[in-house]
Amino acid sequence: MSTQRVTIRDVATLAGVHPATVSRALVDATRHQVSKKTLAAVTAAARELGYEPDLTARTLRTGRTTIAGVLVPDLTNPLFPPILRGIEDCLAARDLTALVANTDNDPARERQALRALRGRNVNGFILLTAHRNDDTLKTLLKDKVPVVTVNRVPSAQDASSVRPDDTGGITALVDHLCGLGHSRLAMIAGPRHLSTGFSRLQAFKAALRSHGLEPRPEDVVIARSFSDAEGYRCAAELLSSSTATAVIAANDTLAVGCLDLLRERGFRCPQDLSVTGFNDIRFMDKLSSPLTTVRVPQMEMGVEAARFLVDLITGQTTATRHAVMPVSLVVRASTAPPPKRHRPLLRQSRGQ
Amino acid sequence: MSTQRVTIRDVATLAGVHPATVSRALVDATRHQVSKKTLAAVTAAARELGYEPDLTARTLRTGRTTIAGVLVPDLTNPLFPPILRGIEDCLAARDLTALVANTDNDPARERQALRALRGRNVNGFILLTAHRNDDTLKTLLKDKVPVVTVNRVPSAQDASSVRPDDTGGITALVDHLCGLGHSRLAMIAGPRHLSTGFSRLQAFKAALRSHGLEPRPEDVVIARSFSDAEGYRCAAELLSSSTATAVIAANDTLAVGCLDLLRERGFRCPQDLSVTGFNDIRFMDKLSSPLTTVRVPQMEMGVEAARFLVDLITGQTTATRHAVMPVSLVVRASTAPPPKRHRPLLRQSRGQ
Repeated sequence: MSTQRVTIRDVATLAGVHPATVSRALVDATRHQVSKKTLAAVTAAARELGYEPDLTARTLRTGRTTIAGVLVPDLTNPLFPPILRGIEDCLAARDLTALVANTDNDPARERQALRALRGRNVNGFILLTAHRNDDTLKTLLKDKVPVVTVNRVPSAQDASSVRPDDTGGITALVDHLCGLGHSRLAMIAGPRHLSTGFSRLQAFKAALRSHGLEPRPEDVVIARSFSDAEGYRCAAELLSSSTATAVIAANDTLAVGCLDLLRERGFRCPQDLSVTGFNDIRFMDKLSSPLTTVRVPQMEMGVEAARFLVDLITGQTTATRHAVMPVSLVVRASTAPPPKRHRPLLRQSRGQ
Repeated sequence: MSTQRVTIRDVATLAGVHPATVSRALVDATRHQVSKKTLAAVTAAARELGYEPDLTARTLRTGRTTIAGVLVPDLTNPLFPPILRGIEDCLAARDLTALVANTDNDPARERQALRALRGRNVNGFILLTAHRNDDTLKTLLKDKVPVVTVNRVPSAQDASSVRPDDTGGITALVDHLCGLGHSRLAMIAGPRHLSTGFSRLQAFKAALRSHGLEPRPEDVVIARSFSDAEGYRCAAELLSSSTATAVIAANDTLAVGCLDLLRERGFRCPQDLSVTGFNDIRFMDKLSSPLTTVRVPQMEMGVEAARFLVDLITGQTTATRHAVMPVSLVVRASTAPPPKRHRPLLRQSRGQ
């Protein structure tokens, strides 16, 4: 092969079809016009030749820039902006623009945002909003719109997804705390309808069992949202029921709310109680109790999701792909061995 | 007047024109079709009757949702997401959707985002990106596209704008530090091409003079961007030249970078040096040196900007409006009286 850029004509020759058929097969809006067999042949030929559709040329031809719609549940959660940055960096390098809509975890806003974007020739979607059972995602899949979910992923593996290694992260936290000598661990879990809530709780229970510990119902409180307000509320509930010496919060913002409540009630972290988070969002290293947490490669998750989407939009692949991003334990000052003379969380038992 | 909803027909009757003329006058894309005199009459009638265009009806009629394009310089700066939230809350209540593009402070990305949005029938723009002399803004104004700038505002007051009271905030910080006994103040200023950088430095110099202090060149270092990396770099530069006992950083992220450098060099805050920020972004109350700063009503700025934009899009006004949002001093543990035995910043002078 020459070093010249591979053209649509080369793909057509190898696939044995007309160049226009290649175009139709590789553009989302017209893909339904070609047969499955032709689509497979074109995709295989494009992959074999390393064909990269020239999105800039397409922009010039159609007069339209290529854009990806990105739905975000809550931009004020510091986890999401770095993921977005990764998405944007990857897209911009390929002349795509990301248009972001913030749904504020509100289904009505999500529908409106989806409608606004779909009415404006968006070429594909990245969802940071997906529930384990997600209506928006189902609609997009049904309409054969290229879509990738990131961070939160659906239970059915029918859409491409990029997620952190939730199980690996929680297991590392449990191992770390048990290694410090803790034998009674509590969890502030995330909402069950989100994969990040559900799978981290499952991982917590499994990891406890692997240490010969049985998870107790009073040691788990489930937050209604990943917010510091819910972390605060759940920590108060734990204080009234649990005698754990360490709390694993399902993410950093829940941990921050938990730390607020502890400070208010006169407990010291980590002397009285160890607390951990998940994600390692900005400033967690600078808190008055620098937080032990799990570092999630936030930007890299965004980049990976954008790569998946670009490959779907340009027809480089028709496969459903799943990526699990590696995470790492970050030990800081919010965890320590349990108090020598056991000082249980349970407020009523303080006098024991 | 009845309690029924005011219709376009009512406005037409009062203005003495045909209902279709009212529609044309109140919709951005067709406004140029009516004379200035008619536009003024329609606008006055609409305002008098309290006419609120039914954007939902328009959506049903045109099949298009009404959207506002929002350009943000850097979503990973925690100042911007709450402003966005305010914008979105206000727009959503009026059935508008915000589509956000993050420019990463990159002119090429900004042009691409603008192109992507303008090619998709965006009804108006809110810019969080504006430079004091801003090309994007000039283009939009020339094309008579409704536009509002927020936080950063241009020097020419030719576009509607919403900004924090930069002067009031900096003056309050200087008063606070002088009240604690400081007489040598340094500033880590923001970039001069941004109003937030320029006007806070002007305010710093003016406030010093009002206390009978003369600002010295070696006490001011100008950051290239509002980032903690730049705060760190500028703090190092100050350490090598200034003998100030307090540092006013032009925003919180610069202050965070400054605190990092101080910790690294073995200086204690506030015992050796007081440090202040601006904006009161999330987590500033939870740092190991809880930050004295200026609270900016971030969401409210967004709401105000969105209100301005909606009024421009719907033709409620043709005026250029400017809002200055009140700010308040938040005193925390990063400021204290200067050390009794003066321990100057200047590294070389430590042995003196």
